[in-house]
Amino acid sequence: MTVNIKKVVVAYSGGLDTSVILKWIKENYDAEVIAFTADVGQGAEELEGLKEKALKTGADKVYIEDLREEFVSDYVFPMLRANAVYEGSYLMGTSIARPLIAKRQIDVVEKEGADSVCHGCTGKGNDQVRFEMAYLTLKPDIQIISPWREWEFKSRAELIAYSQEQNIPIIATAEKPYSMDRNLFHISFEGGVLEDPWSSPPQDMFTLTKSPVDAPNSVTTIEIDYEGGNPVAIDGKKDYSPATLLSTLNDLGGENGIGRVDLVENRYVGMKSRGVYETPGGTILHTAHRAIESITMDREVMHLRDSLIVKYADLIYNGYWFSPERVILQNLIDDTQKDVSGRVRLDLYKGNVTVTGRKSDKSLYHYGFATFDDDDVYSQKDATGFIRLNALRMRIKALLNQKR
Amino acid sequence: MTVNIKKVVVAYSGGLDTSVILKWIKENYDAEVIAFTADVGQGAEELEGLKEKALKTGADKVYIEDLREEFVSDYVFPMLRANAVYEGSYLMGTSIARPLIAKRQIDVVEKEGADSVCHGCTGKGNDQVRFEMAYLTLKPDIQIISPWREWEFKSRAELIAYSQEQNIPIIATAEKPYSMDRNLFHISFEGGVLEDPWSSPPQDMFTLTKSPVDAPNSVTTIEIDYEGGNPVAIDGKKDYSPATLLSTLNDLGGENGIGRVDLVENRYVGMKSRGVYETPGGTILHTAHRAIESITMDREVMHLRDSLIVKYADLIYNGYWFSPERVILQNLIDDTQKDVSGRVRLDLYKGNVTVTGRKSDKSLYHYGFATFDDDDVYSQKDATGFIRLNALRMRIKALLNQKR
Amino acid sequence: MTVNIKKVVVAYSGGLDTSVILKWIKENYDAEVIAFTADVGQGAEELEGLKEKALKTGADKVYIEDLREEFVSDYVFPMLRANAVYEGSYLMGTSIARPLIAKRQIDVVEKEGADSVCHGCTGKGNDQVRFEMAYLTLKPDIQIISPWREWEFKSRAELIAYSQEQNIPIIATAEKPYSMDRNLFHISFEGGVLEDPWSSPPQDMFTLTKSPVDAPNSVTTIEIDYEGGNPVAIDGKKDYSPATLLSTLNDLGGENGIGRVDLVENRYVGMKSRGVYETPGGTILHTAHRAIESITMDREVMHLRDSLIVKYADLIYNGYWFSPERVILQNLIDDTQKDVSGRVRLDLYKGNVTVTGRKSDKSLYHYGFATFDDDDVYSQKDATGFIRLNALRMRIKALLNQKR
Amino acid sequence: MTVNIKKVVVAYSGGLDTSVILKWIKENYDAEVIAFTADVGQGAEELEGLKEKALKTGADKVYIEDLREEFVSDYVFPMLRANAVYEGSYLMGTSIARPLIAKRQIDVVEKEGADSVCHGCTGKGNDQVRFEMAYLTLKPDIQIISPWREWEFKSRAELIAYSQEQNIPIIATAEKPYSMDRNLFHISFEGGVLEDPWSSPPQDMFTLTKSPVDAPNSVTTIEIDYEGGNPVAIDGKKDYSPATLLSTLNDLGGENGIGRVDLVENRYVGMKSRGVYETPGGTILHTAHRAIESITMDREVMHLRDSLIVKYADLIYNGYWFSPERVILQNLIDDTQKDVSGRVRLDLYKGNVTVTGRKSDKSLYHYGFATFDDDDVYSQKDATGFIRLNALRMRIKALLNQKR
Repeated sequence: MTVNIKKVVVAYSGGLDTSVILKWIKENYDAEVIAFTADVGQGAEELEGLKEKALKTGADKVYIEDLREEFVSDYVFPMLRANAVYEGSYLMGTSIARPLIAKRQIDVVEKEGADSVCHGCTGKGNDQVRFEMAYLTLKPDIQIISPWREWEFKSRAELIAYSQEQNIPIIATAEKPYSMDRNLFHISFEGGVLEDPWSSPPQDMFTLTKSPVDAPNSVTTIEIDYEGGNPVAIDGKKDYSPATLLSTLNDLGGENGIGRVDLVENRYVGMKSRGVYETPGGTILHTAHRAIESITMDREVMHLRDSLIVKYADLIYNGYWFSPERVILQNLIDDTQKDVSGRVRLDLYKGNVTVTGRKSDKSLYHYGFATFDDDDVYSQKDATGFIRLNALRMRIKALLNQKR
Repeated sequence: MTVNIKKVVVAYSGGLDTSVILKWIKENYDAEVIAFTADVGQGAEELEGLKEKALKTGADKVYIEDLREEFVSDYVFPMLRANAVYEGSYLMGTSIARPLIAKRQIDVVEKEGADSVCHGCTGKGNDQVRFEMAYLTLKPDIQIISPWREWEFKSRAELIAYSQEQNIPIIATAEKPYSMDRNLFHISFEGGVLEDPWSSPPQDMFTLTKSPVDAPNSVTTIEIDYEGGNPVAIDGKKDYSPATLLSTLNDLGGENGIGRVDLVENRYVGMKSRGVYETPGGTILHTAHRAIESITMDREVMHLRDSLIVKYADLIYNGYWFSPERVILQNLIDDTQKDVSGRVRLDLYKGNVTVTGRKSDKSLYHYGFATFDDDDVYSQKDATGFIRLNALRMRIKALLNQKR
Repeated sequence: MTVNIKKVVVAYSGGLDTSVILKWIKENYDAEVIAFTADVGQGAEELEGLKEKALKTGADKVYIEDLREEFVSDYVFPMLRANAVYEGSYLMGTSIARPLIAKRQIDVVEKEGADSVCHGCTGKGNDQVRFEMAYLTLKPDIQIISPWREWEFKSRAELIAYSQEQNIPIIATAEKPYSMDRNLFHISFEGGVLEDPWSSPPQDMFTLTKSPVDAPNSVTTIEIDYEGGNPVAIDGKKDYSPATLLSTLNDLGGENGIGRVDLVENRYVGMKSRGVYETPGGTILHTAHRAIESITMDREVMHLRDSLIVKYADLIYNGYWFSPERVILQNLIDDTQKDVSGRVRLDLYKGNVTVTGRKSDKSLYHYGFATFDDDDVYSQKDATGFIRLNALRMRIKALLNQKR
Repeated sequence: MTVNIKKVVVAYSGGLDTSVILKWIKENYDAEVIAFTADVGQGAEELEGLKEKALKTGADKVYIEDLREEFVSDYVFPMLRANAVYEGSYLMGTSIARPLIAKRQIDVVEKEGADSVCHGCTGKGNDQVRFEMAYLTLKPDIQIISPWREWEFKSRAELIAYSQEQNIPIIATAEKPYSMDRNLFHISFEGGVLEDPWSSPPQDMFTLTKSPVDAPNSVTTIEIDYEGGNPVAIDGKKDYSPATLLSTLNDLGGENGIGRVDLVENRYVGMKSRGVYETPGGTILHTAHRAIESITMDREVMHLRDSLIVKYADLIYNGYWFSPERVILQNLIDDTQKDVSGRVRLDLYKGNVTVTGRKSDKSLYHYGFATFDDDDVYSQKDATGFIRLNALRMRIKALLNQKR
């Protein structure tokens, strides 16, 4: 499939793997190499001096794009509107960034007239699928180089040896005993010391959040405003962009020990894997969104939507962001969000996000309807017929059985 | 429908409403009245002296049955095996007790040759549905008296006046500004001061749990063992019955501020309602069960089961416990639980239940399969074909569109 | 609920029941009575002289509206776009007409400043639910008169006696031994001689279709063009409105013995009921639509949509046309139909509708991709990885079991 | 993956492809070759002299097993109990045979101590997946040879040349301009002249069924008895085994032109494909099963089951017969079938299967409940409350909107 490779756009992070990849492609394919880095909020330390490094490593050209706003408004927020969770607890912070990076990588392909793309994902993980599903959907004749499925290197040590041999400027950091992926929505940890699912994760690993034990021993109360399913204000202040709003909540959540998850999950490629995640702001938003929905969304619309979330989450986790079925599900979800507007009050405290109030101009909750007393909308006598007809099929069966 | 009432079995709690009901039935129907009380863990204070009180109020006969073990093993545990949650956060502690009480009430009907049953639920709530759906399914020709939908009383004050007039022995407790329902699984609060969904619940209301703020500032680590989807041991100790195990976890959870939920939910009868719940042990078990499933359950089985939980939870919430569709769903769920065995380690701390480890003889997690390295089971090159065929339909569409 | 009735809009058909109703309302409520008749294609004989008859019977005012085009374009076609079928075979011709009639009845209420509506449905059927759900959704404070649930008449004989007593001009037709409902989409039969589900329906009952046995012994081939999920042409002729297109297909289908269905169905109110239906044009369109979808719709979109059809069909059958959940499902369905355009060729012959060809500019079928030979889009070797990773979770389980 | 091949069990049909395969394996792998043929009802002409032919072609050993009864009772009937249909019309006659053949092939592997299996499916189809998913699930370390994905031959002409060169005894039949697969349940046609989805299939292709046009011009009425979801008698005669019952219905259906289907379907490997099928007995049973369910199955059980059929059908079509999720779905389906017993009467006529009657000792249909009149089980007044509470959430929304 990869027979005529002249110009390759590489998803480049500046780390060991993708640094080696830049060089390896030049060497193996004698192709023009364009390094592409998406800033999705992985942090300044990863981005600093990246352009120079890429060029020194052998890139012919370097693109570094700030995609933080697009990431939050067009990827994170749509997913949060769906209340999407994978296997009960993972908020899919890695999954949701991949299609955006792949899409912009393809944009560079188009702009540069490149013929190939390359990523640094391993051959056993989900990310290779997410990148390549996006590539192939957006540009069906693109050639894909997946070095970890092709080259001879088998370990980090071999990569280091190669990079020394090739004078690749890598920073001699102590290797972490696990791998990480960070963006504005979350940080993930897997592999290494985490591979025994009976072992607790090391406490010094956590990056975005304080431990609940170390978090302040006082409650922080915040209010979040929603419009059409999206958060638009914190404590009444509207001057946030999507990315700055999420960032602010990351700080608040992180300070209060919110958003750590430790789970064993099922990868799309077929095996189980242990992952640990920090999603501080996302966890707050996930909780707040449910709360504002609770007073503004019709019951049957909610239950129908809820019954589709397993499917929707699978699509995101498995790399089907650009599939037609994800798009029609997203449209349905967005269709349910028109009236999801109002204010939610939350207590943040040592790992807890507790809803303590919610209100809305679009509220379908009405004091009088739920109270004990009769009213002109609801006649308590109606309950008799409601129950009797709902029970009728069971009664008929039981009556017929009595006669048999 | 209620035309020939000679002998009535009344679901009796000893509170104001059902005390008045005992008397009111005798007066209105000139029928024999049997008081039935199920001990589902509502606590000693509610049960003390109950028999004498019922007889004094006018009951001709009194049944008080300890159903705690049956409640936990045959109702709570099956529901926990399903990971059932209503509208994202309610663990359905009230919903799950009603079918059991109704069933035993019908058993008394059969034993006593009664012709009618009676409950004290209001005409706007879910509980009337849950009781009556069960009655009508189990005994399709039973006559049902639902006083709140029939009598003229409109307020608590009128009930008190009536009970004084009739010398009904009620205890002159200060009325709580909300209504409560308690059993071994949870306590619920609704109505009164809770009816404004923007107001925080009063802190002195909570009964089973400390506030996270007041909980100890140290981590309590526990281990729970599962067999076939059910919890069977705490910290390796197997000498628990279902009810004592749940009770022990209630104490542990309550002490650590675990299991409070505050939500606006959609009632089956059509309106939204605010409820606050404490489910300390149940919250621990809900979390632990997911964790032991995560290493022992097949991915597709899990996702299929997960996609049915909205439906299953609706059935329980809406009162369809004895329906044929709940039974076939339960069988499916139980079918998935055969290998859900092993041990989970959890940290309890100020409202948090954090999974830190899980292991099992039935584990489908295998270190080697998930690691970076190639192995003889998984060839990384397989990923290429996997991705390319999964993307094929999208590629074909994109290729055909290019030509158009 | 019906306490202040001054002006009533009655759904009037001109038959015995609704004629008696006109008079009965005037007599019982001393209210102004407006007769409303929707022409949804029930046929000229039912509509002829209807206005005069209504006025003679006592109506103060009469509305007769030709809703055939609206019925087909806004109700029948959306339902056909969904491939909706109830319980495997019923195309829901009665269910789909009720919301439209109810909606226009409410329009008359608004125009006339009426306070009440009335229909002639029995208290055991689905139609009362469909009418009243629509009324209550569109005008939540409307008063509803449902005579069959209120009055003392228990039989047709009593109605006839009353109408003679009141000089109501009813036509002395021989009573049919079953009840019927007809519109442009179908005719239904139930009750009377059909109530034994073991008895064959009487052959002289069928109205819209020849028996397959009596249909011509030669094949009629037709072609239907679709645009965006809707049929727009027959045999290349585009000069059809929705109603005339359906009517033309009714003639073609009826002549060829197409569209008879005989089933026992589950009513929403809880019991089983036997129904016999003729839906000639609808059956052709149902088959043709599936065929044009088969070449233009993405696989996963189709399977997702298919998995929602049971729910969608329930909503229509149960009277939830105007519910928010039907609307969001319809939007999803319509979202899937954008590219459902092209031509289908069908053989009509003695009860059979056989697809023999389909083609489309939007076709996702491509000769080369499905053939035996390799090509540059599909590498046969990819199948190895595809299969191996799809089987991986089962392999891992089996391998781990081997070791145990 | 296929590195140490000493003894191979080949799925052998006696046709050109698998004959070449026998020889090619011996030549390429220098392995012992065992030919395995499953008799699943493909007909005497394919099986005659097969053993000798296999041995002459080079097989070291030959297994021919009559699996017809197991095929029908353990594969076809379970699928029919589910009413499974793929994409609206395909009854999956090919899909359902593959797992059985694969399973018995693995049984031979175990018995013979073989290390590898081989099939003759092409690399673009579904059957390779169905075979290999079964192999890998049942014996996770089995080696698989898939010649069409491995060898150099690209066409039938090359195979013929090779077989002449190697003296392989193939019969010089005229090649059919399409490929076929036949078993006791159906025959399929695809490829060749069928590849243009606008072209009608050639009439002389059909094998199991007369054309409706050529079928007798008189109605054949039959009665089928069901017990627990399975057909057990025709016209009251119980002396049928599963296979002879299906075979009898194939004759009846085939004679009456029943069971032809022509569709474009979505293959699991990602492309669309045109298939034409004849399933005469299966079509009768599919219709009859729905009819007996209609009077014996609870409404909500039926709708829940129906909502899972898209998933179940996908699993069978895609080759997941032995997956744990197919097994739990099958258990659920079988759980619904306990009371699906009784008699169905059907008219067979020129392509039509028309249900005209159904009865059962387990019937949930009851004359009195569905009739017009009131009764002591159903009070028509109950409908008022039923409707009003079902409409309540929509009314509340509308009322609140009126005030805004």
